[in-house]
Amino acid sequence: MVTLTGDSLLARALPAIARDVDSMFDALLPGEGRLAEAMRYATIGGGKRLRPLLLTATAALHGADRTQALRAAIALESIHAYSLVHDDLPCMDDDAMRHGKPSTHKAFGEAMAVLVGDALHAFAFEVLADPATSGDPFVRSELVQILATASGPAGMVGGQVLDIEGEGQALDLPAITRMQQQKTGALLSASVEMGAVLGRLPPEGRTHLKGYARDIGLAFQIADDLLDHAGDEAKAGKALRKDAGAGKQTFVALLGEERARGQARMLVDQALAHLTSYGQEADLLRSIARYIVERDR
Amino acid sequence: MVTLTGDSLLARALPAIARDVDSMFDALLPGEGRLAEAMRYATIGGGKRLRPLLLTATAALHGADRTQALRAAIALESIHAYSLVHDDLPCMDDDAMRHGKPSTHKAFGEAMAVLVGDALHAFAFEVLADPATSGDPFVRSELVQILATASGPAGMVGGQVLDIEGEGQALDLPAITRMQQQKTGALLSASVEMGAVLGRLPPEGRTHLKGYARDIGLAFQIADDLLDHAGDEAKAGKALRKDAGAGKQTFVALLGEERARGQARMLVDQALAHLTSYGQEADLLRSIARYIVERDR
Repeated sequence: MVTLTGDSLLARALPAIARDVDSMFDALLPGEGRLAEAMRYATIGGGKRLRPLLLTATAALHGADRTQALRAAIALESIHAYSLVHDDLPCMDDDAMRHGKPSTHKAFGEAMAVLVGDALHAFAFEVLADPATSGDPFVRSELVQILATASGPAGMVGGQVLDIEGEGQALDLPAITRMQQQKTGALLSASVEMGAVLGRLPPEGRTHLKGYARDIGLAFQIADDLLDHAGDEAKAGKALRKDAGAGKQTFVALLGEERARGQARMLVDQALAHLTSYGQEADLLRSIARYIVERDR
Repeated sequence: MVTLTGDSLLARALPAIARDVDSMFDALLPGEGRLAEAMRYATIGGGKRLRPLLLTATAALHGADRTQALRAAIALESIHAYSLVHDDLPCMDDDAMRHGKPSTHKAFGEAMAVLVGDALHAFAFEVLADPATSGDPFVRSELVQILATASGPAGMVGGQVLDIEGEGQALDLPAITRMQQQKTGALLSASVEMGAVLGRLPPEGRTHLKGYARDIGLAFQIADDLLDHAGDEAKAGKALRKDAGAGKQTFVALLGEERARGQARMLVDQALAHLTSYGQEADLLRSIARYIVERDR
């Protein structure tokens, strides 16, 4: 799993969040029937759980209840999971493998995959608006607004459209950066912001955390491009080196491997600089920032 | 438009809600770019706006603000619209026409149609959780919960899965009824319940309205089956008589045309009986119940 020497905090946190997210999905997802089976297939046992880790780490940093933070993390991860199910469809990226097993449409058929995505999307907001996620309706309502905005036309989905529209076109660095900030950055930022909301941090207190989130979001995408360029398919659990074939512009294609790697490291340093007002209680967030560019999958 | 003699209330309400929903969509949807264009294509200028009409009529019955009710109706209609965009996809019902014009995937391509559906889905919750929909976060949070539950695995999407799974199988009346109560009934019930929430009706006061909604929901589906069986494609603005070809069981196939028509009328009478505690202030809801089985599109 994690091999970063000296980073025992992260070495404990990664398996813990994977286990807690799986058992919370198991407890909250519907249990009966083919749709429930497919929703579970698409969510349980896969992925690095980076977004739930960011959300729960930020929530813990501000003293929020872990069970409530895990519920919000389940909502967030459901949105991420639905986007992968739809992304893998033949009319989208046409990916047959995801997290080391057949994609949802390969296992359950295309119509079912469309509906599984839609079901997970609604499930996310069902979980978030439930009083069990927070006794304070203002917090619930704010969580819904942050997640819907980050995943909607001005966030994730808007970024996916820019990505499709950019295929085969020569995008420049600002255009790729903008596209990626919407496509993956918005949801990573939402992870941190939702944790802050659960920790009752007022909007004006979230500036540093939002800066941290923006920087690691971009670093994450550059690291993803580097892994797509040079990574190990077995470790990734999905097909790699598809971007070049699809005519997609990546940071690596634009900057070259070395400059891209340097840029990712610079962004991590910048992310860490946003955390200077915190003491060692923010060490997990610091470790996550470093892990994001040093991971091998 | 409406030709029901003596029903001037509905004759005014139908064009008014169509106009107000269109102008509210126009004001709230993003305005720039291809995604915005496709979201507008899928939402503005189409459909009977039956769900917004039910929501705003119920809200008005309990004195809620019309602008806030219209915002909630936009959220509801966005969910309905996204489900049609995804439903029309080649891997789903494969429909080329919707509301008298090419379906979204015919006009914008399949990948874009998947993303337009996802964007409208997120947009619905973004609108609902916005303080402009209600100054009371408890109301916003309750609206989100009702809409997410009604459209999720235990509601609309769950019903769509039962529908797909039932193709080519001999479903009996209870099985079809259950499937349709999820597939279309849940969202129609949500329309009424969301109006009641905006009108500050407590859960225990919503029993009659929920009974009304359940009955007209089923009557609506039987009327839809009858229109599919014997209706006019030009008026419907979509292909008809597809159900039999797809091996789908319908109320008409199971009961025959005459008994199905009788059943729909009985359900309308039953729906009206739920409204006896209301005076003439509920006349619009009564007219909607009758319109649902007498409409020709």
